[in-house]
Amino acid sequence: MQTANLSRAPAPERAPARLFHILDPRVLTRAQLDELCDLTTRVRILAKSRIGARILQTLLPHKRAMLYFVQPSTRTFMSFNNACHILGIRTSEIRDPSTSSEVKGESFDDSIRTFSSYVDVIIMRASGAGLAAQAAAAVDASRRPIPIINAGSGQDQHPTQALLDIYTLERSFEHRGGIEGKTIGFMGDLRRGRTVRSLAYLMTNYPGVRLVFIAPAAFQISDDIKSHLRANGVEFSETDSLHEVLPGLDAIYLTRLQTEWDVGEESASFDHRRYSFGPSELGRLKPEGVVLHPLPRGPELDPSVDADPRAVYWRQERNGMWMRVALLVKIFGVEDELPER
Amino acid sequence: MQTANLSRAPAPERAPARLFHILDPRVLTRAQLDELCDLTTRVRILAKSRIGARILQTLLPHKRAMLYFVQPSTRTFMSFNNACHILGIRTSEIRDPSTSSEVKGESFDDSIRTFSSYVDVIIMRASGAGLAAQAAAAVDASRRPIPIINAGSGQDQHPTQALLDIYTLERSFEHRGGIEGKTIGFMGDLRRGRTVRSLAYLMTNYPGVRLVFIAPAAFQISDDIKSHLRANGVEFSETDSLHEVLPGLDAIYLTRLQTEWDVGEESASFDHRRYSFGPSELGRLKPEGVVLHPLPRGPELDPSVDADPRAVYWRQERNGMWMRVALLVKIFGVEDELPER
Amino acid sequence: MQTANLSRAPAPERAPARLFHILDPRVLTRAQLDELCDLTTRVRILAKSRIGARILQTLLPHKRAMLYFVQPSTRTFMSFNNACHILGIRTSEIRDPSTSSEVKGESFDDSIRTFSSYVDVIIMRASGAGLAAQAAAAVDASRRPIPIINAGSGQDQHPTQALLDIYTLERSFEHRGGIEGKTIGFMGDLRRGRTVRSLAYLMTNYPGVRLVFIAPAAFQISDDIKSHLRANGVEFSETDSLHEVLPGLDAIYLTRLQTEWDVGEESASFDHRRYSFGPSELGRLKPEGVVLHPLPRGPELDPSVDADPRAVYWRQERNGMWMRVALLVKIFGVEDELPER
Repeated sequence: MQTANLSRAPAPERAPARLFHILDPRVLTRAQLDELCDLTTRVRILAKSRIGARILQTLLPHKRAMLYFVQPSTRTFMSFNNACHILGIRTSEIRDPSTSSEVKGESFDDSIRTFSSYVDVIIMRASGAGLAAQAAAAVDASRRPIPIINAGSGQDQHPTQALLDIYTLERSFEHRGGIEGKTIGFMGDLRRGRTVRSLAYLMTNYPGVRLVFIAPAAFQISDDIKSHLRANGVEFSETDSLHEVLPGLDAIYLTRLQTEWDVGEESASFDHRRYSFGPSELGRLKPEGVVLHPLPRGPELDPSVDADPRAVYWRQERNGMWMRVALLVKIFGVEDELPER
Repeated sequence: MQTANLSRAPAPERAPARLFHILDPRVLTRAQLDELCDLTTRVRILAKSRIGARILQTLLPHKRAMLYFVQPSTRTFMSFNNACHILGIRTSEIRDPSTSSEVKGESFDDSIRTFSSYVDVIIMRASGAGLAAQAAAAVDASRRPIPIINAGSGQDQHPTQALLDIYTLERSFEHRGGIEGKTIGFMGDLRRGRTVRSLAYLMTNYPGVRLVFIAPAAFQISDDIKSHLRANGVEFSETDSLHEVLPGLDAIYLTRLQTEWDVGEESASFDHRRYSFGPSELGRLKPEGVVLHPLPRGPELDPSVDADPRAVYWRQERNGMWMRVALLVKIFGVEDELPER
Repeated sequence: MQTANLSRAPAPERAPARLFHILDPRVLTRAQLDELCDLTTRVRILAKSRIGARILQTLLPHKRAMLYFVQPSTRTFMSFNNACHILGIRTSEIRDPSTSSEVKGESFDDSIRTFSSYVDVIIMRASGAGLAAQAAAAVDASRRPIPIINAGSGQDQHPTQALLDIYTLERSFEHRGGIEGKTIGFMGDLRRGRTVRSLAYLMTNYPGVRLVFIAPAAFQISDDIKSHLRANGVEFSETDSLHEVLPGLDAIYLTRLQTEWDVGEESASFDHRRYSFGPSELGRLKPEGVVLHPLPRGPELDPSVDADPRAVYWRQERNGMWMRVALLVKIFGVEDELPER
C-alpha cells in the first residue's frame, strides 16, 4: 500500500503502478500523469453522447463513496459528488461536523475506520494538514483498507486540483506540443496558496518548462518549492512586475489572496491594483496564451475577461470533474471497460 | 432562450414551445398547462405499477440535478428531490449556506456558473426576489447554459406550486368539466402569500372561472393581481365573510398567515376565528366541493377535516411531486419515451 | 398494521408474520430473528462478488427512503444510508432540524405525513422517546401508510442495534451452536444505555443463555429488564467486579458511559479504571470468547485490543449495515428475488 506523504517533507517516493490512496500528487510519475490526462479526455468525450453517458453509469453502480467534507467547500464537493454520480457510484456525505458522532468524543481514527466499514472510498477535505494521510494510515491498519482521496487539507496538498490544472494546461497546448517547453506565470498569493505549490512541484515532470512567479516579496513562492525546482533543473524566475513578464507567457495562472490563513493583517498589504488581470492585461497576452484560475476569484480577475476565448478557467473547473471521474475509474481499475475511442 | 421575468412586472411574453428555464408560471399557455397536467397523470399512473416505476427510472439516469436551497424548505426540497429520483436523476444539494464557497466572497453569478459546470439542471430556492431570474441570466451568458427551475424565491413567484395547484383543481373537477366555469375561493393572507398570487394569475387561462377572495381588508389580494384579472376579463369578488360565500364555492383554497414577512406586528391583527376551516365549515361546503391548502397549515385548517373525502390537500401535496416529475420529463424532452397509456 | 409499542410498557404483542413498522425489537419472534440472521448472511455473502453486488442493486431501485435524523448520529445514518444504496434505494435526508418546515410551526404528525407523501419508507432518529411510534400512528391514519423504521429514539428502543448485536453474537458462535447456552457479560452504563436494554430483552429468545451485568450499583441494569428476564426464566446475575466473572464469559459486551443523559454529575462517579477492557483483560478472556461494543468507544475499551481476533466490534459495526439491508429486503418483500445460496 502506498505510504502517506506530507508536504514540506523530502521528495516522496514514486507511487506504485496501481493507484490507491491519492494523498500527494508529487508521487505521480509522468507516465501516470499522461495516462490520467488521456483517460480524462476519454471519459469527457464519451459523456457527450447519451449512449456514452449511460455507459459511464454502468461502470461502478455497485460502489459507494463517502464525502467527508469538514472544511467548507462547495466547489470541490460538487465536483467530486458529480464525478461519482457520472460513474453510478452512490454517495453519502458528512458536511456538518456537528452531525458527526465525534460529538460523542470518538477519535479521528475510529471515525475514519467506521466510515470505511460502510463505503468503498472516502473522499475527504479536512482543515488540518496531514489528516488525509492519517486517515490512510488508519484504514491501512484495518482488516478492510479502502482508498482515501485527499480533497484538500489545510495549507497542505490538494492533489486533484493539481491534476486538473495539469490537464487544463495540456489540453490548452494540445496543438502546440503540450506543456513541455512552455513559459507559465503564476500570480497572486503564491506563498500560501496550495494549488500553486502542488502544481509547481509537478512541473518538474515537463522538460523545458519555465516558471515565472509574480508576487510582492511577502507573498512570493516559498523556499521549499524553489529548492525542489532547482534540484530538478526547472528554470524559474521571480518578479514583482506582471507588466514586464506578461508578453512572454504562454499561460498565466492567477490565484486569489488566501485571507483565511492570515494570522495578523498580512493580507492588508497586498496591492490588488498591481496584481490583477483585466482587459488591459488581456490585450498584452499572446494570441495563443491562456488564462487559468482555480476559482473562486476575487478582485484579481475581472469578469469581463470571461468572454475572451483565452480565458479557460471555467473549462478548467469542469475539467476538474472529468479528471476526478478518471481518477475513480483508475482507482477501481475499470478503465478497460471503457469503449475504445 | 426564455428571458427572465420578475413578478409585479408587466404581463410577460408567452413561453416558447419548448420549456427551458421555469421561472414564472405566468408565461405558460393553456396548451402547455394542459399538456403538463396530462403528462402528470401519465407519470403518476405509470408509477403505480412496479414495472412502470422501473421504466421511469430508466428515463434520465445520465442526468444530474443540483438542489440549491438557501431558504429552508423541507417540503419543496423533498418533493423535488424525489421527483428527480423517480426519473433516475442523480441529485446534489446545498442546503446550508455556510457550507458554500460564498463564504470566500464569490459573487452569486460565479457560484451559479460553477454549479452549472457540474450538473444538468439547477433547482433553486432563494430568499431574494428575482434571484432565480438572475441565475438564469448568468447561465445564459455562459458557454453551457442549463435550465434553472425556480422552487420559490422570496415573496415572488413559486411556479411549481402554482402548477400543482392547477393540476389538483383539474383533477378534482375531472368529471365536472375541469376548472372552467368553477367558483374558487381563496382565504387567508392573500396579500403576502405567493402561492395564491401565482395561482390567481394562471386562472386567466380558464374561461368562466369566478374567483372569490376572502380575507380581512389588510390581508386582501393586492392591486396588481386584480388589475391583471380585470384586464383578462376574469370575474372576481372580495369579501371579509367566509360565511356568506362558502355555499357557492366549488373549491376553497386556504392559506396560512405569512408571519415571516412581518415588518412590524401585522400578523397580530389577523383573526383566525373568522378565517379558519373546520367541521362546521365543512358542513356548509357543497357535497362535490374540495378543500385545498398548500401546507404547512396553521390554525386556519382543523386536522379533523382530513378525514373528509373533500379534503384534497394531502393529495395536492403528492401531486406536487408528480407535477415536478412531469416538468423534468418535459424539460429534458423525454416525454416520447413514456409508454402509451 | 402493527401497533406502536413504547419501552417500559408491558411485554408487547408479537409481531405479525410480515414486517412493516420496525419500532420495538421486542415484538420479534425467535423465528423472525433467525430468518433475519439468515437473510443477513445471504446478502452479506452475495455482496462479496461483483455480480452479487450488482444483483442487490437491482432489487429496489424504484423505492425511495427518507432518513429523518434529528438527533445527530453519523454512524447509524451512514449504516442505513449505505444499506439503502446497496439495494438501489434512493435516499433523501433531513439531518439539520433548522432546514425543516417545522420552523414554520408545523405539527410533528403533519411533517411525518408530508414526508410519507414522497417516499416509501421513513427511517427516523429522534430525541424524544416514543416519537417513532407516534410517526407510525400518523402514517397509519393516512390513506397511504408506509413503514417507519426506528433508528433510535431517546433512551428508548434502538431496534436495529439490537438486531445487529444478535446477528454478531450468532455469527461469533456459529460453530459452537449459536447464542443458546452461552454466558454473556454486559459492562458499563447499563442503566442508561438503550443498546443493552434492547439486547437483554431479546435474550429471552435463546434458551440456556446466562447474562452477567457488570457495573457499579448506580449504573446497574434497571428493574424492568430484570423483571422481564425473571418472568421469562432467563438466568442472570449482577456484579461490580469484572475480575471475578471475566474467565467464565463467552462474550463480553462493553458500552460507553452515557454522559449525554446526565441531569447532574452522575457520570463523574463512574470509575473507568475498574470498568475498562484492555490487554490484561484480554489475557483473561477465554480463547474462544468475543468482545463486542456498539461504538463509539470511550476509555472503557483500549484500541490495542483491536488487533486481537476476538475483538469483533468492527465486524459488528459492518454487520449493522448488512442487517439493515436484510431488514429492508424483508419489509419490501423481495427476499424471494435473491439468488439461491
